[in-house]
Amino acid sequence: MQEFSIIEQYFKNQTQPRRDVLIGVGDDCAITAIPPNHVLATTTDTLVSGVHFLPDTAPADIAQKALAVNLSDLAAVGATPAWINLALTLPSTNEEWLADFSDAFARMCEYYGVNLIGGDTTRGPLSITLTAQGFVPAESVATRSGAQPGDYIYVTGTLGDAGAGLAVLKGELSGAEHAVQYAVARHLNPTPRVLAGTSLRRKITSCIDISDGLIGDLKHILTASSVGAVVRVEDLPLSPAMTELVSLEHAYELALGAGDDYELLFTINEAHLDEVLTELHSVSIAVTCIGQITGQKGLELKLHNQAYLTQTHSYQHEIPLDE
Amino acid sequence: MQEFSIIEQYFKNQTQPRRDVLIGVGDDCAITAIPPNHVLATTTDTLVSGVHFLPDTAPADIAQKALAVNLSDLAAVGATPAWINLALTLPSTNEEWLADFSDAFARMCEYYGVNLIGGDTTRGPLSITLTAQGFVPAESVATRSGAQPGDYIYVTGTLGDAGAGLAVLKGELSGAEHAVQYAVARHLNPTPRVLAGTSLRRKITSCIDISDGLIGDLKHILTASSVGAVVRVEDLPLSPAMTELVSLEHAYELALGAGDDYELLFTINEAHLDEVLTELHSVSIAVTCIGQITGQKGLELKLHNQAYLTQTHSYQHEIPLDE
Repeated sequence: MQEFSIIEQYFKNQTQPRRDVLIGVGDDCAITAIPPNHVLATTTDTLVSGVHFLPDTAPADIAQKALAVNLSDLAAVGATPAWINLALTLPSTNEEWLADFSDAFARMCEYYGVNLIGGDTTRGPLSITLTAQGFVPAESVATRSGAQPGDYIYVTGTLGDAGAGLAVLKGELSGAEHAVQYAVARHLNPTPRVLAGTSLRRKITSCIDISDGLIGDLKHILTASSVGAVVRVEDLPLSPAMTELVSLEHAYELALGAGDDYELLFTINEAHLDEVLTELHSVSIAVTCIGQITGQKGLELKLHNQAYLTQTHSYQHEIPLDE
Repeated sequence: MQEFSIIEQYFKNQTQPRRDVLIGVGDDCAITAIPPNHVLATTTDTLVSGVHFLPDTAPADIAQKALAVNLSDLAAVGATPAWINLALTLPSTNEEWLADFSDAFARMCEYYGVNLIGGDTTRGPLSITLTAQGFVPAESVATRSGAQPGDYIYVTGTLGDAGAGLAVLKGELSGAEHAVQYAVARHLNPTPRVLAGTSLRRKITSCIDISDGLIGDLKHILTASSVGAVVRVEDLPLSPAMTELVSLEHAYELALGAGDDYELLFTINEAHLDEVLTELHSVSIAVTCIGQITGQKGLELKLHNQAYLTQTHSYQHEIPLDE
């Protein structure tokens, strides 16, 4: 089957068309229209079989994860997601695999109101590269570089679940069925915090999505903003499933370092705290304050006011920042 | 080496920054600004080692080809190229390979005035996915679907050279050194017709870039426009190198079917012919009329007014169109 046949047959016209897509799949380029006074947000992520997902992962789960990872990046800058480009490399034309992948892909596009506008299918070892585009009012872009000393540090949702889910899939962790299912679902089908991203923009000082783990991603904010932080480990939001599956100490380690949570990590100036929390409450988004930005560079982890020594590889309780 | 280190070390800040890049490499998304009254053009293409280039291809050639293929798609819709996203999958962190690849990549970005705005590097079998973005005045987009009976069919440059160059690299073709070098260079480093694309927009009825071969890509225009065409094979533009390397009959076959030329194929209404040709002449772009659009569906190939039977695989002299 030719590449254009695959895109045409499995991916074209699967979702409600957006009015801002002037030319979609099928020409040399897609042509789309950005609303006046908005800027374009673009992100690219690749998932490779055996590296970013286990080789036996169901095609529907791969489709959802690939979309979630990219939509999460758009959420982190406060962008409204709009258009997706798919570059799919497949070892062979497996029609059942393609049907399952494209169905899940279309369902999730429909849910988030985004359109597939272009793609390329090639033969080779399984990998998926998505480029997601969205737009955001020019003055409302959330970045990593605006955190100020005194700002409160918040996260959406709960942390560490995806890491626990991966351990379950690798046979390293077991427990009560409902807790196991919850953790695995959080690993396979993370929720991009799109609504939180668009609600928070303009009112926060910095934002990032947690893909590398809380410590790694907070470090990105601290470096970009030239500040430091204190994080209170006992305040890290943990799901009931997590505390059922592992010890509290193990849960802290997963929350701090495991990554793949795709929650948003953001900072708020005290003056805007009430406004932001009221708005997030009105759209039913749970957030937790986990610490505060400091003027002194470095990241301090504290557990009940004592220095906390994380066992997470390559991190210490006080982490030197990249220059 | 971590993925962000590779992008930061090899690809960040390698070219003159564009003023419309508000946030480039290093945040969750790139943020860019589209000029007022312009629409966004986006294209994605993947090159896989062993499929789209021979495994021993030099990294600089891979970089140039990947960029050329994507810029050519932007040229085909008349877009001004602006921003590039790079998803690079590498089997290992080969610093020499990365240095050569990123140098060539930066040089070509500089030449075309485009900026790398984001990227993702992952471990796996070598493949490169680029997403190129550009913009075009909303009313000037060139598509595949506007060809009308009576329109003249034109191509830029010469056809078939890249096919001859590939045959040389595979050891299937040899000849005079200068001719061999020319053909190989046309295969490895095709020229995206960016200036032709922006010069032609608004004045042509349809346009596509020749990646699949003249017959295949003309078929795309005929299908999208619901028209037919007559092509005069003796008028196909051939380079001196081509006619030195192969027989005229072989040259016709390469020109019709080999693909990878990345020339533009476009149609012009007779009323605009003089204006378009004068403009192209003023910017030193060579074009050749190779036939005419007809109202009767199907593609007729003629050699000196006789039906021409191409030996190109899967095509006959009159080609039924996809419905």
